[in-house]
Amino acid sequence: MRIVVAIGGNAIIAEHERGTWAEQRANASGVARELAALKRTGHELVLTHGNGPQVGALHVQRSRARDEVPELPFDALVAMTQGQLGYLLQEAIEDADPSVRTATVLTRVRVEADDPSFSKPTKPIGRFYADEREARLAAGRDHGVAPDAGRGWRTVVASPGPQAIVEFEPIAALAECGILVIAAGGGGIPVVRRVGRLEGIEAVIDKDRASAVLAHAVDAELLVMLTGVERVALDFGTRWQRDMARLTVSDAEQLLDRGEFPPGSMGPKVESGVRFIREGGRSAIVTCADRLIDAVEGSAGTRIVPDVEGPSATAWTSATVAAA
Amino acid sequence: MRIVVAIGGNAIIAEHERGTWAEQRANASGVARELAALKRTGHELVLTHGNGPQVGALHVQRSRARDEVPELPFDALVAMTQGQLGYLLQEAIEDADPSVRTATVLTRVRVEADDPSFSKPTKPIGRFYADEREARLAAGRDHGVAPDAGRGWRTVVASPGPQAIVEFEPIAALAECGILVIAAGGGGIPVVRRVGRLEGIEAVIDKDRASAVLAHAVDAELLVMLTGVERVALDFGTRWQRDMARLTVSDAEQLLDRGEFPPGSMGPKVESGVRFIREGGRSAIVTCADRLIDAVEGSAGTRIVPDVEGPSATAWTSATVAAA
Repeated sequence: MRIVVAIGGNAIIAEHERGTWAEQRANASGVARELAALKRTGHELVLTHGNGPQVGALHVQRSRARDEVPELPFDALVAMTQGQLGYLLQEAIEDADPSVRTATVLTRVRVEADDPSFSKPTKPIGRFYADEREARLAAGRDHGVAPDAGRGWRTVVASPGPQAIVEFEPIAALAECGILVIAAGGGGIPVVRRVGRLEGIEAVIDKDRASAVLAHAVDAELLVMLTGVERVALDFGTRWQRDMARLTVSDAEQLLDRGEFPPGSMGPKVESGVRFIREGGRSAIVTCADRLIDAVEGSAGTRIVPDVEGPSATAWTSATVAAA
Repeated sequence: MRIVVAIGGNAIIAEHERGTWAEQRANASGVARELAALKRTGHELVLTHGNGPQVGALHVQRSRARDEVPELPFDALVAMTQGQLGYLLQEAIEDADPSVRTATVLTRVRVEADDPSFSKPTKPIGRFYADEREARLAAGRDHGVAPDAGRGWRTVVASPGPQAIVEFEPIAALAECGILVIAAGGGGIPVVRRVGRLEGIEAVIDKDRASAVLAHAVDAELLVMLTGVERVALDFGTRWQRDMARLTVSDAEQLLDRGEFPPGSMGPKVESGVRFIREGGRSAIVTCADRLIDAVEGSAGTRIVPDVEGPSATAWTSATVAAA
C-alpha cells in the first residue's frame, strides 16, 4: 500500500527548546524509529513535514543580517528548510534502520495568485516581539505583523490553499522503487502560474493541506497525519471529551461546519482528511507518532472514511463510550 | 548519452554583486537556456552546482543572529543551499523551456573522517574582514580564520575529498525517466561513516571533485565542467597562452604534476576530469556555458580523453597553433 505520512515541524523543535541542531536530531529520532518500522512492514512511504520553527529561524537570521546579506523571499526560505529537514530526517530514519533507503525531492506546490489569503496574510512566522514597532522592524517592508495568542507581535504571511504538486511524478517514481521519499516539506515551495510559467510567491502553505493534495497526486491509498494526541476528540480537554475511532466524511464535514475543531491545529487535519477522501482516497488517519503502526493496522487513531463504507459509521472508542 | 554538467556558484552570484534573489534569478537564466537546449537534444542530464557565495551568506546570517537563533553546522547549511539553488535552477530551466521536466534530489557525499584537510582547514567561506579579530568573532568558536588573496581575513573550513555519492540510485533512476536532475549541489552534504551509520561533518566539498565521483556513480559517459573560459590553457593570460582542444589523461596528469594549473580554479577541474577518465569515463570537458552544446558535439572546449584513443593525442586548437 502507498501511504503519505505528515509530521509537524514542532515534532522536531519543541515549544520550550532553542532549536539547536543536537535538539532537532534528538527529537527526530523518535518519529524516525516509527517511520522506519512502518517502512519495514513493506509499504511504499512518502513523508511530508512542517517547518514552522525552522522557517521562523531563517526569517530572524535574514532580518538581523539585512545590512550585509540581501534577504531572500519566503519561497526561497521554504526551499532551504526542505533541504535542512530532508537531510535531518533522512539521517534519522537511516540511523533507526540502515536498510531503509531514503531520498528528499524538492517540491513546489502551485497556489492561486488570487487566493484570498494574499490580501489578508494571517499565518504567524518566527519569534514574538513584545513591542509592535520592533516586530515591524524585524518583519521588514514586505511583510505585515499581527498580535498572536496574547504573547506578542509576530510577522504574518499569506497561507494560500494548495492546488497541485509540481513534482508528483519524480516523487511517485522513487516511492515505487521502494525508497522512502521525503517531499513537500513545509507544505511545499509556493508557486503561481503566470503566462504559462511557474513563479515563486511569498507565502507558506499548510503542510496537512499540501499532504492531502500530494496523497491524491501520487495515488496513495492512505494519508496519515501525526500530531500530539492519539485521536481526534470532541470537547477536547473537558470532562465531556469523546475520542473518535472512526468518522465518516459527511460527519467530519458537519463537525467542521459547526466549528468543533480549532482552526490552528485539529481543523486543518480533519479538513485535509475530508479533502483526500472526497477526491477518492481510501482513508485518512489522525494519530500520534508512537501509535503509527497500530493506526495503519486499524487499532489506533481516528480514521476518516468514505460514507459508503458499510455499517461501520462514525464510532467513538469503546473506552470513551463506556465512560460516557 | 548520460551527461553530468557542473556549474559554479559564482555563475549565479557574480563577484561584484550583492546576491539579491533577482540578481541570482537573472544570472541563472543564461546557463539555464543552454542546459534546456542541451536537454532538448535528447541526452540524459544531471546538473551539479557550486554554492560558495550562498553558503557564505548563510554563514554571515547565522553569525549575526547567534544570540537569538542557534547556529546550524556547515553540513546543514550545505543542505539548505541545495534547496535554495535547486529551486532557483529548476525554475530557470523550466522558464527557458517548459517542456523540460526537472527535479532536485538532496545529495549526501561520503568523505573520510581522517581526511588530512580536517586537521588543516583551508577553504575560505563568506565575507572578508579587514581585521583578524573581527573575522574570528564572525567565524565562531568552531571555525578558524585565514588571510585570503590579500583582501582580508575569512572563515576557513575543511574541504575533504569526496569518496561516494549516497543518493546515486534515486539520481540515476530519475535521469533515466528523462528528468533533468539537479544533485550534489555545493559538492554535496558532507557525511562520514561512524560505526556503520552516516553522520554529518563540518566541511564543504569541492563541487568539481564531487561531480567526477557522481558521474562515475551514475554511469555517465561524459562529465562537463563549466567555467568562465572556453578552453583550458597553458600560460593563461600571458603572450604564450596556448588553448587546448584535447588532452590525454596522461598528459593532463603530467601538467598537474608540474603545477601548470592554479589550485583554486582550473586545477580541480583538470584533476576531476582525470579522475573520471581513470575510473572508466569516456571523456570530460572543460568549457564555458555558451559553448556547452558545441563542446558536447566536439567543436568547442577542452576534452580530456583516455590515452588509448588512437592517434588523436593532446592537441592545441588550430587557431592557437597557427599563432604560436
